[in-house]
Amino acid sequence: MPFCVYEMKPIRPVYIIDPYIVQENIRLMARKAAHSGAVFRPHFKTHQSLAIGNLFREEGVRRIAVSSLKMAEYFCHGGWDDITVAFPVNLPEIELVNDLASRVLLGLLVEDSQTLHSLAGNLLSPVDIYIKIYSGYHRTGLEPAVRDEILRIAEAADDGPMTRFLGLVTHAGHTYSASGPEEIRQIFQDSMQCMLTVKDYFSTHQNCMVSVGDTPSCSVLEEFKGADELRPGNFVFYDLMQMELGSCRFNQIAGIVAVPVVAVHQRRNQAVIYGGAVHLSKDRILLNGRPVYGQMVGWDGTRWGLPVEGSYLVSVSQEHGVLEAPDAVIRSLKPGTFIGILPVHACLTANLLRGYRLVSGQTADHMQGI
Amino acid sequence: MPFCVYEMKPIRPVYIIDPYIVQENIRLMARKAAHSGAVFRPHFKTHQSLAIGNLFREEGVRRIAVSSLKMAEYFCHGGWDDITVAFPVNLPEIELVNDLASRVLLGLLVEDSQTLHSLAGNLLSPVDIYIKIYSGYHRTGLEPAVRDEILRIAEAADDGPMTRFLGLVTHAGHTYSASGPEEIRQIFQDSMQCMLTVKDYFSTHQNCMVSVGDTPSCSVLEEFKGADELRPGNFVFYDLMQMELGSCRFNQIAGIVAVPVVAVHQRRNQAVIYGGAVHLSKDRILLNGRPVYGQMVGWDGTRWGLPVEGSYLVSVSQEHGVLEAPDAVIRSLKPGTFIGILPVHACLTANLLRGYRLVSGQTADHMQGI
Repeated sequence: MPFCVYEMKPIRPVYIIDPYIVQENIRLMARKAAHSGAVFRPHFKTHQSLAIGNLFREEGVRRIAVSSLKMAEYFCHGGWDDITVAFPVNLPEIELVNDLASRVLLGLLVEDSQTLHSLAGNLLSPVDIYIKIYSGYHRTGLEPAVRDEILRIAEAADDGPMTRFLGLVTHAGHTYSASGPEEIRQIFQDSMQCMLTVKDYFSTHQNCMVSVGDTPSCSVLEEFKGADELRPGNFVFYDLMQMELGSCRFNQIAGIVAVPVVAVHQRRNQAVIYGGAVHLSKDRILLNGRPVYGQMVGWDGTRWGLPVEGSYLVSVSQEHGVLEAPDAVIRSLKPGTFIGILPVHACLTANLLRGYRLVSGQTADHMQGI
Repeated sequence: MPFCVYEMKPIRPVYIIDPYIVQENIRLMARKAAHSGAVFRPHFKTHQSLAIGNLFREEGVRRIAVSSLKMAEYFCHGGWDDITVAFPVNLPEIELVNDLASRVLLGLLVEDSQTLHSLAGNLLSPVDIYIKIYSGYHRTGLEPAVRDEILRIAEAADDGPMTRFLGLVTHAGHTYSASGPEEIRQIFQDSMQCMLTVKDYFSTHQNCMVSVGDTPSCSVLEEFKGADELRPGNFVFYDLMQMELGSCRFNQIAGIVAVPVVAVHQRRNQAVIYGGAVHLSKDRILLNGRPVYGQMVGWDGTRWGLPVEGSYLVSVSQEHGVLEAPDAVIRSLKPGTFIGILPVHACLTANLLRGYRLVSGQTADHMQGI
């Protein structure tokens, strides 16, 4: 059961979460969505946790997005019944699609007629179909220019007995490489312009909602004109990457990774931590042109402190992380003691650590750790 | 039990392994070590699998290295009884250290007197102590220059009732960023020079073996003068990074990741696969200055084909990978079908996929998937 085991002192790397910060992050985002008249459908791929999911439920959230059918299954078993799989539908999993469609309101993303055709021929229960639109982020989606293909998919979805066209979805993931809030706002506007162009292909009495939702846009903007639905995910925890982008302040980061120090090298101004690519991932940000894999914070076994200036993880290998820090910081470290690391990318870190420890000492589930 | 379940056709990303290539890789490396008069102590952090471990056992291997105490525990339960934890000992896990020390011949790495002191005060069973030496790779180890500290640790280890100094260990991990075989050879020589300098601090009648073992050096060189022990790990599978380095040929790569195609975008010469950072990691190599996260191979459900020229994963996000490929290749792809991806880094990929499927259809264990 989520939230009910108290854990002994950690002995290995562990993701420490402050549920009050999580709650604040959820409240703020839910309020923004409501204020903008948009449905709030948070993406659960970041936390992948029933326990953290309960914090959303307490704030009135009932609709969620996930990034795999397996994740949909996990949350379905946890009682969630309105789930969009915000990933192009993976046809080899049609059995699971059918199982889910019989239990929950299932939304699927499609970006070609062939896939829709294959789906339609195999579905046993009704699903909602969204068309994924490419709005500048080089990954998935149909370009607005392919009007006929977009209309063909929507029409075919509406014609099928088990499919219903519901709207357009995009992910402006290029906000993650923006230089700051100004560029994030601009990307949001451009991306929304793409979506409205495509929406115009449809007659006004046709159902065609517009769903958007990268964390940088949802964090930086206050209004989301044109958006009927917001699906941010990362904001639940935030991380060093988001802080550098200007999406959040330090006190909105809801988690750090507590790691043991295993070696201290004063001559090199370095310490080695038990915390590497298998705990934090190889995701990185550039600070002054140098790759950084995390920043140090103090950790007293319960709460964490402020970011320690000039104290960064400068490399990670499989299990090791190398911390570079000023003289006085390195001198304060001892093998066997714990420090905190602000992770660069919360989603990948959570996926690797596969469980949480709350500041209270309770544990919380993660789908990958079950 | 390893190797005894036959799996249905895969529906999600899975690591496909050819055990005959694995066997050949093991045989070649074991022969090299024997030829050089060195003990072969392969690093099991790459595969983390009892089933793959059995293939080593069949080739006469009895001593292994691992990268965490938990991994030592996994292989101890699998019947391995001579295990070096090739990672600076993590003091908070002293209970597990004691448990392991009572069951197996346990080797531990130490790089400061304080840690040795703390260990000595808490050990209940004997362990072997190796001193980690820094030989140019910016991570762990004592620099050869700190002669007194090195001798102090060795002496303290020999004085303790539960510790015995056995030798020196290094990891010349900077071979991974070498430009090719010539530089790898040079790094090996320089690194070995460091080790022999330190070995000279000890009297000739004192036990002081020298253990080395990065995969690039062990693959490129034929003789390892001065090395008493070789501990490579990655060579068991090899990967795109090793092939680019010149450590292996394509037909020595023992595994590919089979992934479903989920979207095809001919206009952009791209396809999207269900295979992202949570399957392949964010490790990458640079090809012509561009980051690459994997290369495409054909896969017929059993065997894989040759690398497809010009067909690379150019980005990965949490669950998505974006494949860029020539026109004709993209045209041949269909959503719902599988292709193969040569992973950039086998160790991280295996750690994420947490299990294997052999070309025969049998499954094999991975410690993270248990």
